Amino acid sequence: MNRIYLDNNATTIVDPKVKDIMTPFFCQQYGNPESLHSFGMQLHPPMRKALDQLYAGINANDEDDIIITSCGTEGNNSIIKSVYFNQILNGDKNHIVTSLAEHPSVAKTCAFLEKQGVEVTYLSLDKKGCINPQDLEYAITEHTALVSIMWANNETGVIFPMKEVSDICRQKNVLFHTDAVQAIGKIKVDIQKIPIDFFTFSAHKFHGPPGIGGLYIRNGIKFSPLFHGGEQMNDKRAGTINVPSLVGMGVAMEMANDALEYEKTEVYRLRNKLEDAILSLDDVIILGDRKYRVPNTLFVSIKGVEGESLLWDLNKNGIAASTGSACAAEDLQADAVIEAMGVNDDLAHTGIRMSLSRFTTEEDIDTTITVFKNAVERLRKISTVY
Amino acid sequence: MNRIYLDNNATTIVDPKVKDIMTPFFCQQYGNPESLHSFGMQLHPPMRKALDQLYAGINANDEDDIIITSCGTEGNNSIIKSVYFNQILNGDKNHIVTSLAEHPSVAKTCAFLEKQGVEVTYLSLDKKGCINPQDLEYAITEHTALVSIMWANNETGVIFPMKEVSDICRQKNVLFHTDAVQAIGKIKVDIQKIPIDFFTFSAHKFHGPPGIGGLYIRNGIKFSPLFHGGEQMNDKRAGTINVPSLVGMGVAMEMANDALEYEKTEVYRLRNKLEDAILSLDDVIILGDRKYRVPNTLFVSIKGVEGESLLWDLNKNGIAASTGSACAAEDLQADAVIEAMGVNDDLAHTGIRMSLSRFTTEEDIDTTITVFKNAVERLRKISTVY
Repeated sequence: MNRIYLDNNATTIVDPKVKDIMTPFFCQQYGNPESLHSFGMQLHPPMRKALDQLYAGINANDEDDIIITSCGTEGNNSIIKSVYFNQILNGDKNHIVTSLAEHPSVAKTCAFLEKQGVEVTYLSLDKKGCINPQDLEYAITEHTALVSIMWANNETGVIFPMKEVSDICRQKNVLFHTDAVQAIGKIKVDIQKIPIDFFTFSAHKFHGPPGIGGLYIRNGIKFSPLFHGGEQMNDKRAGTINVPSLVGMGVAMEMANDALEYEKTEVYRLRNKLEDAILSLDDVIILGDRKYRVPNTLFVSIKGVEGESLLWDLNKNGIAASTGSACAAEDLQADAVIEAMGVNDDLAHTGIRMSLSRFTTEEDIDTTITVFKNAVERLRKISTVY
Repeated sequence: MNRIYLDNNATTIVDPKVKDIMTPFFCQQYGNPESLHSFGMQLHPPMRKALDQLYAGINANDEDDIIITSCGTEGNNSIIKSVYFNQILNGDKNHIVTSLAEHPSVAKTCAFLEKQGVEVTYLSLDKKGCINPQDLEYAITEHTALVSIMWANNETGVIFPMKEVSDICRQKNVLFHTDAVQAIGKIKVDIQKIPIDFFTFSAHKFHGPPGIGGLYIRNGIKFSPLFHGGEQMNDKRAGTINVPSLVGMGVAMEMANDALEYEKTEVYRLRNKLEDAILSLDDVIILGDRKYRVPNTLFVSIKGVEGESLLWDLNKNGIAASTGSACAAEDLQADAVIEAMGVNDDLAHTGIRMSLSRFTTEEDIDTTITVFKNAVERLRKISTVY
């Protein structure tokens, strides 16, 4: 059976070109880049190139830091806990503002800090799955140390109003972090156009290798490392640098940016083709406005059909989709983001996310449309509630 | 020029068999193991196998946790900061005991906690580069939350008295962590024989891939994650699991254990051959007792020869060595561990570490002996102090 992968917001295939570029760094060009001999120093030019690709990819200034992490979760934990140590435990702030849409790596880190006595405000979502910037203005107080609002939501694909959030944080003089894990590779992320203090990305979401990510830190902002130790990464993140994966992430970032036009046109067209076919069914809801979503994602609720059941029907036919965040997939509770959007109770367990990539073909989508429609028909026939 | 790599305590070549086993997980068997579809679930058997290899490798019980981290630095930070949150900030303890021999990922994490008001005792080293267990007994008080003493030193290769340290911690009812990064693959690490509460390892030190490591946590011990977020790793370490690297680390652990006999005999013989040749020179000191060192490491001080200069002479001849920890290599201060051993001031800048592996050949050692002797002769001729 030819399998179809529509779960690219969970993870992506490593681009074969990325894999090929990484491979020599395992057994040929090995070494520790901190070492003062040829095995170590031979790694500096390819590392420099990868860092240049990352800086160019987000349009960062040379003076800013991009520190190399092991994943998006590390990046989000690093920022929020740095703010905890610098501005809260050893400062005069005691408040963080975030949203109900955040990935568990932000939400649960905030929940952990609440146990340490930090106050956290969770901005609610409207029916379209977005925050209201005015709520943010009201939420910020003189005690607010950090605003952490994601760039694009992993489940619905909804893009958050970064420019407005950033302007409010600037005006109120509050640090602003965004989890951009679902933005890189899907839409343009330009740090010059939207001034942000910290943002997080993860290579395996844009056809880079797993186990590596990045954390942008604007020049001049005090930072307390999550990993203390060696002097790597400008003393901001200790640990031997993962050279093969860094080199892979650099080229993956470059390729992702080169493919943005394709993402905006072709991936968008294929996503919309699938979405329109689904919308031709009765009693279905697509969450989030199409024009305010990343081009690759759709999240649909189908009245009378359990998300899990549909997932299994698709999987039996070789199609990989998701009921929401893979980081919470084993938990069969109603989806927190979907609940926050105020979706009716009888739709809260009926969501399916499908997320495309530049590797998705027209044939994949045509097959998915047929399988999807048959599955919904079958499941509704045996449904006790439809 | 045929290059010779004698810096295996900084990092190792990835065993080509490890690389081959990892490769399919980039572009063929990709997926997020948390996902409820075939792409995700196909990863469970190879992940299970890798975890079994890790459990078998250290002889852990099924009930214990081995959580997968991104490196040794992450493991060491995780434990020390978990103890900070659980036993100190939210408990009635306020003291950590460690040694002057620790890797920066332990030493600097302790220094960070000192800034948060935690008391830290640093056990001193004797002339042989080892701690005195009696000092540990005296250092532990009713306020001691953790003892963190490394298994084997990265610079001298000296093996610390784990059994005695462990017995003292048991008797005094204090948690015991060891940084075993330099022990795995060099000597047998059996968690049943030496009861330890937490220990850290890192794949790239035993011919596994960079960017992945492990953290053993004895069953029943309260742990506060360094990475909050998704429910991966039994809720103890969030973040998408790095499947190719985990699979690589599993097989690397198995191969490292299979090679221990070779390490104990052949690597030991080659290291001693090199060491004996060096000892035939005048005015040289090898640090640490040969019988209490891991088999692959030697650290030599050569009167009248700057470590950096010798390093460059070796490097010009294609031989990679080190002046100490790669994690502190860019810092040309006198080596902290060497200073702690009370080595004479005129020897404090003269150290060279050479660390072999199972890939080191007899020819490598013969060439190194010739180059080394010539370099020492040349450098002593131009020395102003010898």
